[in-house]
Amino acid sequence: MTAKNAFYAQSGGVTAVINASACGVIEAARRHKDKIANVYAGRNGIIGALTEDLIDTSQESDAAIAALRHTPSGAFGSCRYKLKSLEANRREYERLIEVFKAHDIGYFFYNGGGDSADTCYKISQLSEAMGYPIQAVHVPKTVDNDLPITDNCPGFGSVAKYIATSALEASYDVRSMAKTSTKLFVLEVMGRHAGWIAAAGGLIEDQGIPVLILFPEIEFDQERFLAQVKQKVEEQGFCTVVVSEGAKHPDGRFLAEQGTRDAFGHAQLGGAAPVVANMVKEGLGYKFHWAVADYLQRAARHLASKTDVDQAYAVGQAAVELALQGHNSIMPTIRRTGSDPYRWEVGEAPLAEVANVEKFMPRDFISADGFGITPACKEYLFPLIQGEDYPPFHNGLPAYVTLKNASVAKRLDASFEL
Amino acid sequence: MTAKNAFYAQSGGVTAVINASACGVIEAARRHKDKIANVYAGRNGIIGALTEDLIDTSQESDAAIAALRHTPSGAFGSCRYKLKSLEANRREYERLIEVFKAHDIGYFFYNGGGDSADTCYKISQLSEAMGYPIQAVHVPKTVDNDLPITDNCPGFGSVAKYIATSALEASYDVRSMAKTSTKLFVLEVMGRHAGWIAAAGGLIEDQGIPVLILFPEIEFDQERFLAQVKQKVEEQGFCTVVVSEGAKHPDGRFLAEQGTRDAFGHAQLGGAAPVVANMVKEGLGYKFHWAVADYLQRAARHLASKTDVDQAYAVGQAAVELALQGHNSIMPTIRRTGSDPYRWEVGEAPLAEVANVEKFMPRDFISADGFGITPACKEYLFPLIQGEDYPPFHNGLPAYVTLKNASVAKRLDASFEL
Repeated sequence: MTAKNAFYAQSGGVTAVINASACGVIEAARRHKDKIANVYAGRNGIIGALTEDLIDTSQESDAAIAALRHTPSGAFGSCRYKLKSLEANRREYERLIEVFKAHDIGYFFYNGGGDSADTCYKISQLSEAMGYPIQAVHVPKTVDNDLPITDNCPGFGSVAKYIATSALEASYDVRSMAKTSTKLFVLEVMGRHAGWIAAAGGLIEDQGIPVLILFPEIEFDQERFLAQVKQKVEEQGFCTVVVSEGAKHPDGRFLAEQGTRDAFGHAQLGGAAPVVANMVKEGLGYKFHWAVADYLQRAARHLASKTDVDQAYAVGQAAVELALQGHNSIMPTIRRTGSDPYRWEVGEAPLAEVANVEKFMPRDFISADGFGITPACKEYLFPLIQGEDYPPFHNGLPAYVTLKNASVAKRLDASFEL
Repeated sequence: MTAKNAFYAQSGGVTAVINASACGVIEAARRHKDKIANVYAGRNGIIGALTEDLIDTSQESDAAIAALRHTPSGAFGSCRYKLKSLEANRREYERLIEVFKAHDIGYFFYNGGGDSADTCYKISQLSEAMGYPIQAVHVPKTVDNDLPITDNCPGFGSVAKYIATSALEASYDVRSMAKTSTKLFVLEVMGRHAGWIAAAGGLIEDQGIPVLILFPEIEFDQERFLAQVKQKVEEQGFCTVVVSEGAKHPDGRFLAEQGTRDAFGHAQLGGAAPVVANMVKEGLGYKFHWAVADYLQRAARHLASKTDVDQAYAVGQAAVELALQGHNSIMPTIRRTGSDPYRWEVGEAPLAEVANVEKFMPRDFISADGFGITPACKEYLFPLIQGEDYPPFHNGLPAYVTLKNASVAKRLDASFEL
């Protein structure tokens, strides 16, 4: 077997640990120079492959690659770009094969969530459909934790740790202020379709914090919600609300859609948090504060879960090993082998069963009243936030790496219009 | 000299390190049992003194008091309550003296910002005005960094570290996404009157991040702002904006005032961040994300500056030492004795010169174009964010302490209406 080159790219929303997976892929490949000559990274995901915009990772020192493990974001750039089907856009697939041929690429590693798994799955079919030999392995990543088969998704554990910690800290703050000032704190978190991230807010309940969660899975009932807030504030003096950006009214409108217009008649985009906070103010008169964590939650490598970092690295490494074992159209998974103490190992799943399948919160993870999480959910979540894995700091700030990202010389004459 | 009791209370918005000051006060007092018999904490600030609602800190173990050093928020509850002048409300001062007498209180330690310094100053005048011997020492605390005389305020350094780190992490994220998606990230930070916190966003510029800051001190100029965003995005592909909640239009309106109404005609309260983000979207068409850090920034003990924690503890300890040396109407300060390497010591300032004086950003700390910070500002700020001081974690979350907060038995018959 002569050595081939590998293509690696990052896709979709980035996370605090997707670069740890990149580190796993590249370090594993460097240990197998006899089989993987070089790793070419796509600049901005699959777009890098389509436009022959490849990054030569061999230009990066071992130290720089090692530093990816503690650096958030996508070091090679990501993209939101979904390949159409072979029938609908054969031109794109032909182009990919041209680029792969020109650069002797035999391995395709794609690091992303559900949409990206679909892209990777389509690539994995190229061997058969178009007669080009390539092994495509998907490296799972998504803060939304909504990929099937795998017990959890790298990227999620760190967001869960960030949200639980931030909600805990802010709750201590509100508790201090509640006598004469703020009684309600509302934190808006990501997760448009699934409430996994919001659920992490429920982990602080065991520390005596009165917390209510608004899940996308549960139809919002304003009257019941206000009654719950009132009860918490009357009993404990304050209340913390964790609201998913995907929380919806019974008619399907997101809570975040305020229906307001500015002086020029433009629709105003707000967040769900200010909507919920103002609703409580109007209904109950409580003074409030609210925060929208947005990118901070998924970029917060300074507070990553060690478990998550370890797993992100492990699936990157395993992807290379699976490819070297001859696999195609596959994804390494996290398999839970014990909960107390938590134990896990890397498993595998066929990509055909992963692409385009979304995993929602099981109903028995959400409390009967719809505003909290159950003991089963806590048993699932707590292991994922275990351990700290601080980045090095320099001059008061995290010392994250920015790679050189040197381009591979182009070999094709034609450019490609996306 | 027979031992007297001390009163300690927390006032105004709490911080990640105000409890470190409480720790400094109580541990120092415990080392001087011959002079300070017990520390009674006011439940919810000065309100605890007015209503004779005192907490017996001697019921707390040494370990619990030590844990205050790594616990954010105000462990005894804070308040927003400003004493009127002696002439305007003599009744409150008479009540305070009754409570102090009933509990043999000879020392008054008040931990807060500018308004609280005013309260502490008024108490310090009781000896002379009303013939009750008490020594009042103010312990400085404010994330706004706006107290005079002291080089910086405990509480600020940790917020600055949090904002700079968060802006750095989110900027890495946007940079990854910018090719096909988000090009603009807007982070809203605290500081209604002074731009100290916003200025911390400028510390990431040295890491190659294109960042623009909107200060409350600089009149907002929409046209110039949009031109700056456009230039950054065209040159570097993305742009990060750190906007102070206090940023204002030329007519004095806050940017956060959208002037929008909901379906019922109620004015909508939003944040400055979504306003700025939508403004860029409309003017330049860039896809955006925004975050509002709110309480997360001032409660984030998990990312505290070690320098800040050390200084917060030191001023608490120094307050007790100043009192034992016989001082009244005084505040320990942080005095900078060197910048490279940074060196500091505890100084002191008369309360009469502290109360009700606000310190704004010097104009020469803001760049000529008004959207950034100068090298002088960086030289001032960087030392304040140095060092990490992680709290212990248990089961994936910070192990913060919640005190017993046992009440001191009341000795007065009369209750007091606030």
